[in-house]
Amino acid sequence: MADNPDYLPPVLQVLEAQRAFYDAFESRSMDAMDAAWEHSDDVLCTHPGWPTLVGWPKVRASWAALLANNEHLQFIVTDEHVTVRGDMAYVRVQENILAAGAMSGSLTALNILGRQADGSWRMLAHHGSPVMRG
Amino acid sequence: MADNPDYLPPVLQVLEAQRAFYDAFESRSMDAMDAAWEHSDDVLCTHPGWPTLVGWPKVRASWAALLANNEHLQFIVTDEHVTVRGDMAYVRVQENILAAGAMSGSLTALNILGRQADGSWRMLAHHGSPVMRG
Repeated sequence: MADNPDYLPPVLQVLEAQRAFYDAFESRSMDAMDAAWEHSDDVLCTHPGWPTLVGWPKVRASWAALLANNEHLQFIVTDEHVTVRGDMAYVRVQENILAAGAMSGSLTALNILGRQADGSWRMLAHHGSPVMRG
Repeated sequence: MADNPDYLPPVLQVLEAQRAFYDAFESRSMDAMDAAWEHSDDVLCTHPGWPTLVGWPKVRASWAALLANNEHLQFIVTDEHVTVRGDMAYVRVQENILAAGAMSGSLTALNILGRQADGSWRMLAHHGSPVMRG
């Protein structure tokens, strides 16, 4: 594995998979969003201020609605803290959001990713919430 | 394992460990809170509206401050959705909070637990956020 020039350590694989999720959001590509998530009943998504959606069909429907919006959002993701254990990983990230080129908000998010049978990592859970203090 | 009368399936082990976390909060016991969490740099905690705290020392300090408060909170935890994969698990829960016997709020939370070397499960991450829609 380490001799393979394409080999990335698991922490970097996880960050790359998470980047694909934010890229899908920025580019409003449902195809890319489909590819970024595991399609299973284990999937969870909590948009800021929303109740948690459970299972891929509900999570997918929420993304389809959000991506249909024409507003261009850009995510500057900082303060990543990654933990990988076996075939699961979680990442704490700060999401600094630009809308129309201006700072429009700051969210703290917890993302969980799972390694798939083909070795790729996909999103299992996303929980974003606004930072109101500190 | 299954012949042992004390054996619990992993999903129930995880729910029991999570219950110990909420019991620690309700009873304002720092000893019980210490026992409910893994003590490592992998630990994350996001109190509602707060930025995410990283690492056990910061997370512990936040609980010590919260538990020093005299207000008695009771957690009615519902809608648990548990996923266990290897030595990690995550749970979506609805936290229905009673203060002085009255309903005082509803939070949606994502908890991540990790299996320890001794087989017990401990909290790795807690992310709670207020539900403002739906």
